[in-house]
Amino acid sequence: MQIGIVGLGLVGGSAALAWADEGHLVKAFDLAPAEADLHGIELVDDLEELLDCDACVLAVPLPSLPTVLPTFATYTGLLTDVTSVKQPVVDLVAEHCPQVRFVGGHPMAGKETAGFSAADKTLFRERPWVLTSDNDSISDVESASELVSSIGARVLVTSARRHDQAVARVSHLPHVLAVALKRAGEADSFAMEIAAGSFRDGTRVASSPIELITAMCAGNSAALVPLIEEAIEDLQRARSALQESTPESAFTEWINDSRL
Amino acid sequence: MQIGIVGLGLVGGSAALAWADEGHLVKAFDLAPAEADLHGIELVDDLEELLDCDACVLAVPLPSLPTVLPTFATYTGLLTDVTSVKQPVVDLVAEHCPQVRFVGGHPMAGKETAGFSAADKTLFRERPWVLTSDNDSISDVESASELVSSIGARVLVTSARRHDQAVARVSHLPHVLAVALKRAGEADSFAMEIAAGSFRDGTRVASSPIELITAMCAGNSAALVPLIEEAIEDLQRARSALQESTPESAFTEWINDSRL
Repeated sequence: MQIGIVGLGLVGGSAALAWADEGHLVKAFDLAPAEADLHGIELVDDLEELLDCDACVLAVPLPSLPTVLPTFATYTGLLTDVTSVKQPVVDLVAEHCPQVRFVGGHPMAGKETAGFSAADKTLFRERPWVLTSDNDSISDVESASELVSSIGARVLVTSARRHDQAVARVSHLPHVLAVALKRAGEADSFAMEIAAGSFRDGTRVASSPIELITAMCAGNSAALVPLIEEAIEDLQRARSALQESTPESAFTEWINDSRL
Repeated sequence: MQIGIVGLGLVGGSAALAWADEGHLVKAFDLAPAEADLHGIELVDDLEELLDCDACVLAVPLPSLPTVLPTFATYTGLLTDVTSVKQPVVDLVAEHCPQVRFVGGHPMAGKETAGFSAADKTLFRERPWVLTSDNDSISDVESASELVSSIGARVLVTSARRHDQAVARVSHLPHVLAVALKRAGEADSFAMEIAAGSFRDGTRVASSPIELITAMCAGNSAALVPLIEEAIEDLQRARSALQESTPESAFTEWINDSRL
């Protein structure tokens, strides 16, 4: 099978390495390709050279998709992507290439490091890879499913909207809280000297590239804003518990409260 | 040197193992000692049996200190502790044993697992160990400093109040945010299926024993409440940025904002 990759960053590069390792012919386009051993991935100079591939994977940030998508308007292979929000991609595909066989994709794997130099063909093994079913074509979803499960990912099929709500909870909200926590800690240099595991873990993803955090949070604001509001209300309850006359029992109750 | 330990949990047990390993005679009291190989630590049946030690380390949770402290009212050795808030301990010592040579202590090392079975003599190596200087005795601080640096900890001396403000930032606030994030994620079972590193890291410390989280947060509410309020305001700004007409630039500005 011939697979085209647009963008050889961490995710595109890791997937390209994994597919090449599985024996597929992998062609890739990158505006500024890394000067590294590509382990058999063939670099092409123009996006158009990917149009004869059986499947193409867009592994560029959301803001780059409007530039890339028009090239695929008449593409007849399977088109998928790896961006961390799905409804905006579904909308862009409908706008720029409504005829294409598109299945949205989102591998739930990553690192706080970026670029092809951090790429790893085992990155997706046993990790969830969400496929969105919005184009209503079972055969396209099946093809996409075969593609990503061949490199070890666990496929989960859902709608773009359902996906976006879920990642707002378990990926975008964590990033927002990590940024706020990092700022709170760094306001006190002595605090930073004694910072240990809880601060390090709680702020790890705040070190992700700012443009990536922005792209996923701003691109998913419809789902994220209500969750930030819930978090604010939850913190207000924590504060009130700590201000009660018996803060121990009130705060324990707050920790155990699962009614939200 | 003879060292007494009250409480053979994760922290007390790790310190006891480390001091025994350094060749000190270590005696320990625990209400329900683990049935484990104590590697030379001598268990005693009564707290009083520790009163002939050169130094005693209280490694019990804050709520247990009022029960333990009266025994040390006439103790002439060096008394220290390991609880994660310091001003309440200084106050309790002043109330129950005002004559004792007390230097507060807080090792900035831990795990989300608890108990002697998780104890590790290397737990404190290269980790900060805060000593509080509130009793104004340089020689007592020096003795405490020798004690904890002998097992590899990096000593930092400060006041109880300054310590409590700093740990509120880098330890207690992270626990509060982790609890809120865990609750947000667990409200959606599909979200939990696709949860990856950012959620796992952001919620790790929410798995600490609830009574420990409560003891440190409720015991340090004076410092923690203003930080929760700052975090709420920070999240309100994040929400507003995401609701602007150009959320990308507004949200990037929010991430970069270091004025807080």
